[in-house]
Amino acid sequence: MQILFERVAFIGIGLIGSSMARAMRRDGTVNTIVACARRAETRETALRLKVADSVTADYAEAVKGADLVVIATPIGTNEEIAKIIAPHLKAGCVVTDVGSVKQAVVDAVAPHLPKNVHFVPGHPIAGTEHSGPESGFPELFENRWTILTPLPHTDQAAVDKVATLWRTMGAKVDVMKPGHHDMVLAITSHLPHLIAYTIVGTATDLADDLRQEVIKYSASGFRDFTRIAASDPVMWRDIFLNNKDAVLEIIQRFSEDLTALQKAIRKGDGETLETLFARTRAVRRGIIDAKQA
Amino acid sequence: MQILFERVAFIGIGLIGSSMARAMRRDGTVNTIVACARRAETRETALRLKVADSVTADYAEAVKGADLVVIATPIGTNEEIAKIIAPHLKAGCVVTDVGSVKQAVVDAVAPHLPKNVHFVPGHPIAGTEHSGPESGFPELFENRWTILTPLPHTDQAAVDKVATLWRTMGAKVDVMKPGHHDMVLAITSHLPHLIAYTIVGTATDLADDLRQEVIKYSASGFRDFTRIAASDPVMWRDIFLNNKDAVLEIIQRFSEDLTALQKAIRKGDGETLETLFARTRAVRRGIIDAKQA
Repeated sequence: MQILFERVAFIGIGLIGSSMARAMRRDGTVNTIVACARRAETRETALRLKVADSVTADYAEAVKGADLVVIATPIGTNEEIAKIIAPHLKAGCVVTDVGSVKQAVVDAVAPHLPKNVHFVPGHPIAGTEHSGPESGFPELFENRWTILTPLPHTDQAAVDKVATLWRTMGAKVDVMKPGHHDMVLAITSHLPHLIAYTIVGTATDLADDLRQEVIKYSASGFRDFTRIAASDPVMWRDIFLNNKDAVLEIIQRFSEDLTALQKAIRKGDGETLETLFARTRAVRRGIIDAKQA
Repeated sequence: MQILFERVAFIGIGLIGSSMARAMRRDGTVNTIVACARRAETRETALRLKVADSVTADYAEAVKGADLVVIATPIGTNEEIAKIIAPHLKAGCVVTDVGSVKQAVVDAVAPHLPKNVHFVPGHPIAGTEHSGPESGFPELFENRWTILTPLPHTDQAAVDKVATLWRTMGAKVDVMKPGHHDMVLAITSHLPHLIAYTIVGTATDLADDLRQEVIKYSASGFRDFTRIAASDPVMWRDIFLNNKDAVLEIIQRFSEDLTALQKAIRKGDGETLETLFARTRAVRRGIIDAKQA
């Protein structure tokens, strides 16, 4: 494989950053990898696992001479990071990110970047409930989608290069507007996570003995929610704070639908329940057909 | 292994019934298996897959001479089945079931059974989103819990025999009161399924193009819900209709918790969000420690 970017700087080297670093190394698409992390333990782990050639706690130092900068921290930090790194970016450098919300990231980052660098916002739709550089693995993106949301004036060559990087990592690439991305993800990701956090929270509030039984008998459905609700708390806090409108809109629709089902149960209306339960099977078949199961 | 029951009759031979039949054959705990199913296709499949030695569409004929009768149909059918089989049950026969709600099953079945048979209600906490005899496999119950909810007067020897049967199939066995079972399962199973059905339903109602995108990008959380929401519609309709009080009570708590999170998002209250999201991780660790993950 051809080198796409000589020197890459990761700002944040958790599950996603370290998986990308491992995949890039495997693919030979980059030469040198610098990882920036605030916590000493994270830096040591990144070095020990050889996901980075060098590490630093200093954003500015990390991006010096980099051909590609990947911002892979909780999105609440992105504006501060953009401000700090902006004066130190090499002319012609490509800046990308992996945040789960795109409009807020564009608004936070783009205004601070100099005109001679290329910003290509991105979001790989892949992950696990684990965090930290030790959780990463190079196959994470295989057969998964990565969505790029370039601005109208973004250099097409830079977009193509980032797309090629992702495809080499095994991902499928789509391009869309940031706002549209945020609405789709509010449904497919943000609401499911919020619901999972809520239901596991409801169970956490139960009396001690009942909570122990909930854990014991979790294989009956609850278990799947606990996996989702074990995702990184700071990352998810930032997602909800930064995709507020789309998330509130979809919570509203969900609540109305739940109220309708609640009413059907109260009234003993089996027909309404069965009709809805049969209908949702079709969506599962769609996912299996789309090979995303 | 010793034969526990010479002749077993399954009323219903779907995912659970056929998995039990396969496990019993493997273990050598039974000799002859009769399967009763209303649909000809199900009977043919059961015979072809050799999960039953003989099949019938007639409840009464199925239970004749049986030492164990397993009712494994959607629970809405249980009262009618109990009425029909009662006069044909052999003296000393053990009747059990696998329903996901226990008080309603006890109320529907127990009054109709003659005094000289032993009713041991049961619920194996295991399953997949697939239905029908072809979906069964003998390992389904391994390391999973089966809850038995015998009545105060139930013969202890019959309870022990059913418990031994389940343990031989690889399950762990617990005994509790039917009403307590129904409250625990309302949280661990019935609410998660209702929520999954709701969220997938909300997505189904989206405009066509948006729904296609939801399927495409489902790997971001939504996917896990669609698996749960692909479960058997009639079985789940009957569960909600028969565990109404416990389910409505737990929906109420869940809705209050969701409203609180909704408010935190609206107000931009990151601290409340982060605190809850961190707390729910502990429940996941509990499940991993309990080896139910």
